[in-house]
Parts: sequence; structure tokens; C-alpha cells
Amino acid sequence: MSRVPIAGVGMTKFGKNGERTSREMFAEAAGKAFEDAGLAPDDVDEVFYGNFMGEIAEQQGHSGPLAADSAGVTAPSTRIESACASSGAAVRHGVNRIRNGDVDVILVGGAERMTNISTAEGTAGLAAAADALWEIKSGVTFPGAYSLMANRYFHEHGGSREDLAEIAVKNHDNAVENELAQFQMEIDVDDVLGAPTVCSPFGLYDCSPMSDGGSAALLVSEDFADDHGLGPDVAIVGTGQDGDRLALHDRVSMTRTPAAERAAQMAYDDAGIGPDDVDVAEVHDCFTIAEVLAIEALGFYEPGEGIKAATNGETAIDGDLPINLSGGLKAKGHPVGATGGAQISELTKLLRGDHVNSEAVSDADIGLTHNAGGTVASCVVNVLEVMS
Amino acid sequence: MSRVPIAGVGMTKFGKNGERTSREMFAEAAGKAFEDAGLAPDDVDEVFYGNFMGEIAEQQGHSGPLAADSAGVTAPSTRIESACASSGAAVRHGVNRIRNGDVDVILVGGAERMTNISTAEGTAGLAAAADALWEIKSGVTFPGAYSLMANRYFHEHGGSREDLAEIAVKNHDNAVENELAQFQMEIDVDDVLGAPTVCSPFGLYDCSPMSDGGSAALLVSEDFADDHGLGPDVAIVGTGQDGDRLALHDRVSMTRTPAAERAAQMAYDDAGIGPDDVDVAEVHDCFTIAEVLAIEALGFYEPGEGIKAATNGETAIDGDLPINLSGGLKAKGHPVGATGGAQISELTKLLRGDHVNSEAVSDADIGLTHNAGGTVASCVVNVLEVMS
Repeated sequence: MSRVPIAGVGMTKFGKNGERTSREMFAEAAGKAFEDAGLAPDDVDEVFYGNFMGEIAEQQGHSGPLAADSAGVTAPSTRIESACASSGAAVRHGVNRIRNGDVDVILVGGAERMTNISTAEGTAGLAAAADALWEIKSGVTFPGAYSLMANRYFHEHGGSREDLAEIAVKNHDNAVENELAQFQMEIDVDDVLGAPTVCSPFGLYDCSPMSDGGSAALLVSEDFADDHGLGPDVAIVGTGQDGDRLALHDRVSMTRTPAAERAAQMAYDDAGIGPDDVDVAEVHDCFTIAEVLAIEALGFYEPGEGIKAATNGETAIDGDLPINLSGGLKAKGHPVGATGGAQISELTKLLRGDHVNSEAVSDADIGLTHNAGGTVASCVVNVLEVMS
Repeated sequence: MSRVPIAGVGMTKFGKNGERTSREMFAEAAGKAFEDAGLAPDDVDEVFYGNFMGEIAEQQGHSGPLAADSAGVTAPSTRIESACASSGAAVRHGVNRIRNGDVDVILVGGAERMTNISTAEGTAGLAAAADALWEIKSGVTFPGAYSLMANRYFHEHGGSREDLAEIAVKNHDNAVENELAQFQMEIDVDDVLGAPTVCSPFGLYDCSPMSDGGSAALLVSEDFADDHGLGPDVAIVGTGQDGDRLALHDRVSMTRTPAAERAAQMAYDDAGIGPDDVDVAEVHDCFTIAEVLAIEALGFYEPGEGIKAATNGETAIDGDLPINLSGGLKAKGHPVGATGGAQISELTKLLRGDHVNSEAVSDADIGLTHNAGGTVASCVVNVLEVMS
């Protein structure tokens, strides 16, 4: 399928900024994207906005038109909600709209405000991404669900808490120089193992944080890019999405994520590539085990072999396949509705050469984002390529 | 643009059925659509599901994969939220996906469960479709917002409570024989004028009810329809969407709905028709005044002239342009996430000839749906045509 140039990207600093509204954070991110692209709000033909828990945290639904308005845009706008994959889905639907051929400029992205409510309220709000009738009523929240997946993974394939800790250490390392990241601090394996237990086997550092933030990207048609001399350096060349049963107990396996496997295959087919062609990836590490499941589902590792990737340094900044050079959800932060768009923003900069960690991937041509909702009941994969 | 056949439609009976979950109601609606089309869940390539207040009423977000699963479908699925226009937007995005050319069958629709919570909770939940920072905090709920629009309309253009009452009377008349409608009962103008005041000038019968229900439609590519001998009788031939500032006080006018005007123009251009070509329409009469604003925005009447349409019988079942032959939101009911899909379901049947009110429009070729969110901060217009 046709490639969709990314004309500009932007995101707020992620962190604990609960006094800011989602609309304000999206406006900042969109403003940065306009500046980055050299475009104006009047250029935008449509808006897809990702947000997950606005009704709970801000008493605000119907946020598509609100997001458009906050960015200065008057155009059709739709709020896309797919839990933590909301803005990854917004990006995908934006790509498909550009490919329809009847719009030239789409503003995509998302925002989430999470720390203005208590951690308990936030945890309960996040649980709305699980099955209310069967999981939430049983007391399951996401640290619990993912810890079940981690324990089962250990049972089936081996691996240890230390292996998971190496993932958190790596992603913190990657974030140290990233001024947009929530946690610009190094940690070591002992810090992870010694942290308070959240839900065994997870300690505090196995879990991504509650965060506030916004992200945005401007996708354009190739004709528009040519006509306006935008010369964007990176394009989306493949996109895929799939779903699964919402409740973990309804799945065939607790250590496989077929929604991600199918989304990846769809994106690879769309881009005309395979997993071996990917040079760098941003994956959905909401918990340390989630990064393992992601790199296996994406075909980078066979099932059961992803657990040692960080331990062996293969996914480190100087490894064969750097994963989460932004810091990932773990260290960059995870304002859920903004996360998929932030993956696009960070990866675009990494591939263009203007990210603090770009030097590590100066030869990279192809990057990939993996954005998951719930316990991967939904997943969106986008493939980015440097335009020659 | 290309036309998108509607292979099958279905909806639940709308009404007060708060013991049923949204997923259950969507499953019923989708099952009816599959039966209507002669298709199976395995045929579906993607799902767009409209839902507005699941987080509030059911503690359930991330309802795209849940809706797909409840319908027996494994495919990419996305929850679309645009307040009361959620499933109208789901239909529109489904049309655009079929037009992408890489999918053949899309399941669209929505569901909403509203009466399992109290009316006060429901009213507060619905208010999340307004601007939380400026409108909700000032105590505005939707009966209040629309009553401001009605009073301003009277001030600018004249008209009376009796004219609004005629709209409610007409829509109840249309619903009497519709077994899917919430209120199969006639009312008269005195009933409307004598009903308890909700917010002046509105009495109880000027307002659509709280409802539970689901709706679904199966959209297919023309090639798929031909290859499978589906012979659908109705297709979507035009679609439009636009937005406006969320808060009523930010608008230029309180008696115009430019989001609807622009969505209609986009849909007309897409279909290659004008308002004079429309034979029958389902419009978003969440309050009686909303029907007036809709038929003006759609170009059926000049601004200020729509108020007398029902009084003069022009929009009645035997009038020149029947409006809301299903009973509309007023009498059919308004489970918000299901409403846009239900408009498609009812209009398809009306045009195919298998609706209880089809005889009144036996010569009709072109029908239109108008689905609005909030005080028309978002609007989706779809144009349907009988396939020759």
C-alpha cells in the first residue's frame, strides 16, 4: 500500500502534571507538530484523537471535537478509544484515511490526565480496560493480570525476576538523556529486585507509572508533501491491527498475544517486509513481561526466547535490535491515551536523526511501533521507514 | 465516490431493559444483521463499535474487542466515541474502510445501557458530552442546553411550544406500529403542553428518553456483494462529518448548527445530490427543537422556517418529506451509542420495503440520516440510495 509521510510530530514532557487538562496537553503536542511540519491548523482535514479514561478522570467524553478545537482545528474529529492502544489506533485510522485519497492532512495523537485523581481511582479507572463482568468483579487490576502472565511464562519457559529487571534497567538507561521522559534516572537490577512488591513477581520498577501527557503527529498524502515541499524524512509504510477476547481467562494461552502476532503480520504484509527488516522498535512495555511478549509476538524472538534479550544486551542501545530507545512506557511514562502517538513521535525523531538517542541507530531504515490495549485484547502495529 | 452496499441490518427493541449488558444487546443486533445478510461472523474483516458512557454505566471501556467477541467476530475492532453520534461515526468510518479497498465486510453499530443507573447518574453521565470545564461545572445538562437553543430560536424566528409539540406528536404517531420502538403510544398536543416541565420551554414529551438498546449493520464492498450474490437493495452513497466548538457559549449562533450544515454538504457532494433529492430522513430529535435545527441544517428548510414543518404536516408520514418514520429518538428511544446505527437500520428497512411504515415511502429512492453529538458539536450525515 502507499506510504503516508509523517510531516511533523510533537509531545509534551510526560510526568506527573495532574493540574493540566487533557485538552491543554494535546494542544501543546499539536502545536509542536505544526511547528515541526511547518503547517497550520487550517491545513488539517480531519482529526483522530486517542483518549481512554476521560469520563473517569475529567468527567469528559466527546473529546474528539474538544481536541480539534484545542488545536485550533475546525474539521471532522473522532475520539478513538482502545484502552492503552487508543492513539496507536488513531494513527492507524489516520493512515487509512489518507489512503482513502480524499483528505491530505490528518492530525492524530492523544492525551491522558491521570494523576489528578488518586492512585486507587486511577487503578480502578484503568481496570475498565478489562472485562467488567468477569475480571473487574473478581478484583483483577492490571498489575495482577500481567503478573499472572509473567508467572505462567516462567512456568512454561523459564526465566527469572532478574531477566525482567534487566528490561526495566535498560529502559531507564535509555531515558536518562530524554528530556521528555518522566524518569530521567538510572536504576540497577538490585533497585528493581529490592523495590516494594506490587504483585508477585512484580516490584514497583516492573510497572509503568501513572502519567499525564499528550502526543501528536501530522500525517499527509505524498502529493501534499510534494506540492508543499515538506520533504518529510519518515513515512508510515505499513499498519496492522487485531483484537482478542477481552478477558485473560478466555484466551488459549497466557503467554502468547495473538492479537499482536496478527497485527504485526498485517503490518509486515502491508509494508512488504518481515521482522528481520526491522532495525529499531518502540514496544508496549506497560509491565516488564509485556516487552518480552511483544518482541516474541512481533517475530523478533521465538516464543520463550525473548526473556533473555535484555539480559544478553541484544535489545540495548548498542545491541542488534534496540528496543524502547525512548525509555519505553516504563521510563518515558504512560499517559495511556497519548502512548501510541508518543511512540510515533519518538520513533520518527530517532529515524530522522534528531532524537538524543539517534546516533545509536544512525544506519536504521525501518522502525516499528507496537501499542497494546488491556492484556493485548487489542493491538496496533505501525511500520515507519526513512524516505529516500 | 463508490457506493457501499448495506448487506444486512438489525437492532434490539429499544426500551427500559437495564438488566441487559451492552455486549448482550450488541450481540443480538449483530446476530439479526448476520441473519438479514446471510453472512457469518467469520466473514467480517473489521468492526467499528459506537458506545458513549460505558465507563460510567458499566465500568467498561475498551469495548471494541468486547463487541467483536460478543458478535462472534475475531477481527480488528475499534470503539468509536462521539457522544450521541458514536454509531453514526462508526458507520461513516466503516464506509471509508470499505472504500480503502482492502476489506470487504465491516460490522458497524453500537449499544448503550443507561437505565441500570439512576436518572440522576444518567443525566450526569450524559453531561460528559458537554464541556466539563465550562458547561458541566456551571450546572448545565442537556435539557438545559437545548432549552436555551429553543428559547433563542423563538426570540429570533418566532414559533411556539405548540409547534414543538407537533413534532413530538408526529414522532409518536410514527412509532405506534413499530415494535422496536420504546413508546408505541399516541400522544396529542395537549398531552405535550400539559406534561411536567423539564426545563422551560420543554415538558417531558419534548425530551427523548433514557433507553437501552443495540444496533448493527453489515457494510460490504460491491465486489463482495456481487461475488456472493447478496443482492442488497440499499447502499450508502455519501457520507459526511464535521465538528464544532464543544461549549454552546463558544458558538457564533445558538440557532444554527454549522457542524451539521458542513457534514450535510460533504455527504451531498459525496453522493452527487442536493437536499431536494432526499425523499425521507431520520434526524437526531433528542429534543423537539433539535429536529427543527436538523431539517434547517440539512437544507430542507431555510433558517427560521423549519419550526412550522410538523405543524403544517409537511414532515408527517403523508407529507412531502417524512421525517423520523421510525419514531425518531423521541418515540423509538435513544440508547445513545446505538442511535446512529439504528437510524441506518430503520432507514434501510424503510427503503427496502420491509418496515411497517415503508408503504408511505414506496416511491422513495434516497434517504438520509443525521446523527448529532452534544449540542451538535459533532455531526455525521449518511446518504442511502436504493440500488437499481
